[in-house]
Amino acid sequence: MTSIDLNADLGEQVGDDPAMLTIVTSANVACGFHAGTPRVLATTCAAAAANGVRIGAQVSYPDRSGFGRRFIDIAYDDLVADVVYQIGALTALARTAGSDVTYVKPHGALYNTVVHHELQSAAVVEAVRRTDPTLAVMGLGQSVLLRDAAAAGLPTITEAFADRGYRADGTLVPRGEPSDLLTDSDQIAQRVVRMVVDGTVVADDGSTISLAAQSICLHGDTPGAVEHARAVRAALSAAGIAIRPVG
Amino acid sequence: MTSIDLNADLGEQVGDDPAMLTIVTSANVACGFHAGTPRVLATTCAAAAANGVRIGAQVSYPDRSGFGRRFIDIAYDDLVADVVYQIGALTALARTAGSDVTYVKPHGALYNTVVHHELQSAAVVEAVRRTDPTLAVMGLGQSVLLRDAAAAGLPTITEAFADRGYRADGTLVPRGEPSDLLTDSDQIAQRVVRMVVDGTVVADDGSTISLAAQSICLHGDTPGAVEHARAVRAALSAAGIAIRPVG
Amino acid sequence: MTSIDLNADLGEQVGDDPAMLTIVTSANVACGFHAGTPRVLATTCAAAAANGVRIGAQVSYPDRSGFGRRFIDIAYDDLVADVVYQIGALTALARTAGSDVTYVKPHGALYNTVVHHELQSAAVVEAVRRTDPTLAVMGLGQSVLLRDAAAAGLPTITEAFADRGYRADGTLVPRGEPSDLLTDSDQIAQRVVRMVVDGTVVADDGSTISLAAQSICLHGDTPGAVEHARAVRAALSAAGIAIRPVG
Amino acid sequence: MTSIDLNADLGEQVGDDPAMLTIVTSANVACGFHAGTPRVLATTCAAAAANGVRIGAQVSYPDRSGFGRRFIDIAYDDLVADVVYQIGALTALARTAGSDVTYVKPHGALYNTVVHHELQSAAVVEAVRRTDPTLAVMGLGQSVLLRDAAAAGLPTITEAFADRGYRADGTLVPRGEPSDLLTDSDQIAQRVVRMVVDGTVVADDGSTISLAAQSICLHGDTPGAVEHARAVRAALSAAGIAIRPVG
Repeated sequence: MTSIDLNADLGEQVGDDPAMLTIVTSANVACGFHAGTPRVLATTCAAAAANGVRIGAQVSYPDRSGFGRRFIDIAYDDLVADVVYQIGALTALARTAGSDVTYVKPHGALYNTVVHHELQSAAVVEAVRRTDPTLAVMGLGQSVLLRDAAAAGLPTITEAFADRGYRADGTLVPRGEPSDLLTDSDQIAQRVVRMVVDGTVVADDGSTISLAAQSICLHGDTPGAVEHARAVRAALSAAGIAIRPVG
Repeated sequence: MTSIDLNADLGEQVGDDPAMLTIVTSANVACGFHAGTPRVLATTCAAAAANGVRIGAQVSYPDRSGFGRRFIDIAYDDLVADVVYQIGALTALARTAGSDVTYVKPHGALYNTVVHHELQSAAVVEAVRRTDPTLAVMGLGQSVLLRDAAAAGLPTITEAFADRGYRADGTLVPRGEPSDLLTDSDQIAQRVVRMVVDGTVVADDGSTISLAAQSICLHGDTPGAVEHARAVRAALSAAGIAIRPVG
Repeated sequence: MTSIDLNADLGEQVGDDPAMLTIVTSANVACGFHAGTPRVLATTCAAAAANGVRIGAQVSYPDRSGFGRRFIDIAYDDLVADVVYQIGALTALARTAGSDVTYVKPHGALYNTVVHHELQSAAVVEAVRRTDPTLAVMGLGQSVLLRDAAAAGLPTITEAFADRGYRADGTLVPRGEPSDLLTDSDQIAQRVVRMVVDGTVVADDGSTISLAAQSICLHGDTPGAVEHARAVRAALSAAGIAIRPVG
Repeated sequence: MTSIDLNADLGEQVGDDPAMLTIVTSANVACGFHAGTPRVLATTCAAAAANGVRIGAQVSYPDRSGFGRRFIDIAYDDLVADVVYQIGALTALARTAGSDVTYVKPHGALYNTVVHHELQSAAVVEAVRRTDPTLAVMGLGQSVLLRDAAAAGLPTITEAFADRGYRADGTLVPRGEPSDLLTDSDQIAQRVVRMVVDGTVVADDGSTISLAAQSICLHGDTPGAVEHARAVRAALSAAGIAIRPVG
């Protein structure tokens, strides 16, 4: 039976976390560097555990005022230490909630940067490997990050985005450009089913491209986010696809 | 052979950490809530490990602008989460440095508060116990904190201060009052030897009081700090007292 | 013609600021110490200016992780500097938006503390007076803060709460206790009209107490907040009461 | 009579501020975004005022953990708001100290970025102009920042560095490379005299280049900083050069 993981960003105090936790199987929990307080993160971990949702550490640049959405030209050793610190902090909170951190996903500008930035990708991978080499790394399939993670012997999780526009070369349509975001629940849902069943998606030029993903990222903070997420889950179930974490 | 542990606050970017690490056997490393960045803390943990110095998590109120020196009327669950977060973060950094966190010591206003504050003491103890029940708790011998820690089955480490004035009732002379601080290296050193050998100290009224301590706290950021610390270590060695961590 | 000012907390990234700005005449804008980024505060000031809404500096303890809701035992000089810093920062932002800061209102735990805390009240008043003695101070009518502000020659603005329960002695029913919060829009609206017309409110024991207020605080972040606020404004207008800033 | 301004970074809690305030005529005071607390900044402003030293706002990226030394790809409106906020905050503190902010100098990575970055330079200039068009802007003579500031009608102050190595093209030798920093007090002092008297400096390739500067930046946090600064001041006085602020 075909299966897929559904993930969403949580603990950021911007969306409807309780609703999303009834839909996803993996929670990318903030670690306090772009959003979240220890109390909020503890509560989020407990809620994830109660819903049987796997916890990942959503590590970020230290940038609360920018919500982690701005590139920082950070030194290698600084980034390694920042990522180790965040994974450690969230792991302790997850464990006191009776769960654990099982994967790491970079957030915001760091996510986009490690798609191509050799130094910062290497720093994230070193941080994960040195903290716990059984942790998986989640990111874009074609990214430098997943290449480096695999080379370091770390498990990897490729993801695709339910509602983001894709270019013919497999990259995302940048935010703010036409076709950057799908907004119709049915369209989003059918697209995700096709991603999972066929491993393809229709790019913004109308061409069909292949897109292998082990997890689908659902946004939790956009208008209609919960509705979209429910539509995706319902469509996957209707198509006979199991929704469960990778591995 | 009699032995004693020497501890100091490190990673706060205020004192001469490299020098202190050649003197103490336990490093109370900041966790980023009152001082320190992940990079600084990583460097401090690595230096402690290289010197064979044990690492403790110096947990604090979230108060960087006040250096953790101001009482905060924080809710129980907030404090538990803050302490878990800090221990977890520092533990990950310590482990990537080839060492580990082996004890927890509250910092600044939190240290003073948990001497008597039932709720906050209970929160710190719960945080330690849930994070790792093999972690020791360091504090004042007569404190609510050590009473609670022992009741929770946690190892405890009592400490005395090398250069702080004591009252006849065993409490510290508050900072800013006469006799609050000793400043002569020889006097400080001989006093510490007496604390260790006799388990006594002369209080500010001239009376001799008993003072059991498993560790002596050396300040690292006062004028003459390193000189005082070296004098203490030399005097202890001259008196045939082994300097090594508790347990 | 009777008139009243309506105020609400804005710039905190938690409520529907655009809607509230069509209802209130005074915006208590966060200053970055409990919530808000400079960009958010700039946008809030611009929106307030565009709606003809007066801007006040909602000064707070430095406590982002606690949203300013926890008492901090802060030193006098620290609090003076914190308040001066916040007023100055928001004033510059308000002026670049073509408006200005015209009053200061403490936030959260600081608000509650300066009702009775002599030292912290004095610090807030000194900060306001030294920054700009034409700034008004908004607070509870019976507070030490307004007493001190008046004694220092600062204009004062007394406020009452539209939806908070009152005790027979004029104090607020603490949050979390029965009758702490009214939740019915009509009831809230009629109560505010009575506050303004009669200068009275029915306390939680059924007694009627006098309550002089120059401004009514509307919450912007509770469930139904905008609906309640609109009901209050409509009821005041229907009662022939002008809604405009004090002075 | 020839004259020169001497400036240094203060309020950063890293150097000997009291000593430097007896040497310089302009204090670049931190604004809390890379270093300093409101209390520290208030104290620094008061000390500057007591020494007759002019106060400038040393504005930074919001990056305390990186001490403002890392490039951030910040949006135009975010940077404008950040700079307005910082100038406003420090201005209020300077005024309560009986002084005022009279110029703005970017710090760290922002300083280096606005030498060439069109968008960020424009943002800083817009922030200064909208906050107070009588404020001067201090920076490198050949920078985009000073070009933009002049075009916006703002007063400008060109500066040179007492102890940094220069390349033949007038740019600084990057830190970490050979000849990046001079460390001999006499050499530094004589070099500054030549900068002021002749308007030239010897570059790292031995060639003499012209270097017009209205202010000389003295580092306050390097080893020997105070000694170097005293030597510079003494040499300037011996050469009959008045030390006083620009304008």
